[in-house]
Amino acid sequence: MNHTVTQFVMEASVAESIARSLNLPSVLHLLPHLVHSAQSLARPPISNFHVGAVGLGSDGRVFVGVNVEFPGVPLHHSIHAEQFLLTNLHAHRCPSLLALAVSAAPCGHCRQFFQELRHSSSLKILVTDDLNCVQNHDRIGMLDIKTPDFIPLLDFLPNPFGPRDLLDEETPLLLEEHHNRLDLSDQAENSPILCNGNHNSAKLSNGNHEINESLLKTVALEAANDAHAPYSGCPSGVALMDCEGKVYKGSYAESAAYNPSLGPVQAALVAYIARGGGDYERIVAAALVETKTAKIRQDDTARLLLKAISPKCELRVYNCQLAGNVCKKLSV
Amino acid sequence: MNHTVTQFVMEASVAESIARSLNLPSVLHLLPHLVHSAQSLARPPISNFHVGAVGLGSDGRVFVGVNVEFPGVPLHHSIHAEQFLLTNLHAHRCPSLLALAVSAAPCGHCRQFFQELRHSSSLKILVTDDLNCVQNHDRIGMLDIKTPDFIPLLDFLPNPFGPRDLLDEETPLLLEEHHNRLDLSDQAENSPILCNGNHNSAKLSNGNHEINESLLKTVALEAANDAHAPYSGCPSGVALMDCEGKVYKGSYAESAAYNPSLGPVQAALVAYIARGGGDYERIVAAALVETKTAKIRQDDTARLLLKAISPKCELRVYNCQLAGNVCKKLSV
Ligand SMILES: [Zn+2]
Ligand SMILES: [Zn+2]
Repeated sequence: MNHTVTQFVMEASVAESIARSLNLPSVLHLLPHLVHSAQSLARPPISNFHVGAVGLGSDGRVFVGVNVEFPGVPLHHSIHAEQFLLTNLHAHRCPSLLALAVSAAPCGHCRQFFQELRHSSSLKILVTDDLNCVQNHDRIGMLDIKTPDFIPLLDFLPNPFGPRDLLDEETPLLLEEHHNRLDLSDQAENSPILCNGNHNSAKLSNGNHEINESLLKTVALEAANDAHAPYSGCPSGVALMDCEGKVYKGSYAESAAYNPSLGPVQAALVAYIARGGGDYERIVAAALVETKTAKIRQDDTARLLLKAISPKCELRVYNCQLAGNVCKKLSV
Repeated sequence: MNHTVTQFVMEASVAESIARSLNLPSVLHLLPHLVHSAQSLARPPISNFHVGAVGLGSDGRVFVGVNVEFPGVPLHHSIHAEQFLLTNLHAHRCPSLLALAVSAAPCGHCRQFFQELRHSSSLKILVTDDLNCVQNHDRIGMLDIKTPDFIPLLDFLPNPFGPRDLLDEETPLLLEEHHNRLDLSDQAENSPILCNGNHNSAKLSNGNHEINESLLKTVALEAANDAHAPYSGCPSGVALMDCEGKVYKGSYAESAAYNPSLGPVQAALVAYIARGGGDYERIVAAALVETKTAKIRQDDTARLLLKAISPKCELRVYNCQLAGNVCKKLSV
């Protein structure tokens, strides 16, 4: 029997109660039961290959991740279910992922991205397609599995390349608390760079939609301060606003292997989807805050993706300065 | 002792002769000896982390791959040494990669990209940093290793997700001979889309450089016909021209996991670097041929990367049609 998930986050007490109602010994055992309905939340218009991942956070909450694909742009813009899941944990300030069940074997890109977690090698993963194979696609049979066969990440990616090859022990990893100490105070330097549109007033209007530019900028700065960019030292963050004025934020998340890094627009779209955002065309405004450097620039790429998914969305880009030591943990 | 490589391809007879001169039983044993000098050919201005990969093709030739990073754009544009290596084999029509030695443990992104090869699970990989670790960085000690410890790819990426999950057995994989049957004949539809520049004449001039538009278009079409795009059905190819009129081509190479796909500009830059191309600013013109579809478009991304590395380079984009069955092997 599969329980139906309709939300991307489940409180610990709710998860425990569902596990009990299914006669499962723990929430860990519940994860594979939620995968099938999680898959139905995926948005893969290119592949039509629906992937669902359901993870258990260290605070007892259960998080969902799904794959998301964007027609009209290259495939590297895609968000995998596992990356969605981690971004979802990050957005909800869950400090650690203990285990996940996922519908298909994680690809190498995701196994690599998982390396950004502290103690990544012991992260436990269960592939439900493998279970179904063994059991002749008898999903109900999964209920019999009292000790689901979670396998540590190290067995999915032995001899990994990762943060330990490049960073010192003090540097916070993904999901670990930190603050990038970014600053937008130098106003003269920070007149926004308009990418799609040419407005001058502080309160912009896009069609009938009032856009609060200052709010979007502040939220994008918050997102940039939460970004995980220890390799490049170039954190960035995005805030999106929908036609109802709801704001969604996303932080850039870097990978030691570079290419699997998740862009800030993707991270904000995870928040948009997880909070029930509908069509992307409902996104009418966006702000990007990034460091003023030639090393890595997200602006053109952010514009390219937003143009593809919501042509009328206006992107404003703000350059920030590093006001302190970027990568070290905050001394509280 | 390490032999010095200065070229990205070595003929079989040359490789055999060097192996003999070093008292090595085979070219396979030679691979790790070439890794150190291969690393010096890398172009990693962001990480300064030089990766070299040296592979043995099924035709006895030895190929080199290095990592390449591009400042000013997001990290997903980076080319890893292993992807460079495969692109180099493809450019030289080597039908299969048997083994490679690489300086650092391949990242998950690369282990995933290797899945595009037929019989990928038995591809043999040796990580020379691991050797050096064991031997206290005594590189000369490597000569004593008569049976270098190559490990099959399956041990680097167990339970992989790959082409076998999505394609039938008939579909050619990466490096396997095929022709995408793309067609540019519908001229009315194919007036090029200029991305950087606004020329009208067939023979363009960029500064003092004569640009043969028709040649570039033809070469880009060839590259697109060689592209590996079985998942999206959207092959593409790029031709670059340097200030001396030399032309370099690159074919898009897709990954079953989407994100690790290598863009056509990256593939052409592999050819540029492998054939001794210098600064990227020597690239003065480019052509992109891609299918006329909303599913995947490379044009804006190609322009973005070229603008970052060679601002004066002009990109022309041509839309082609599929003239036949894209993914099947050619019946000869
Ligand atoms: Zn994945
Ligand atoms: Zn790699």
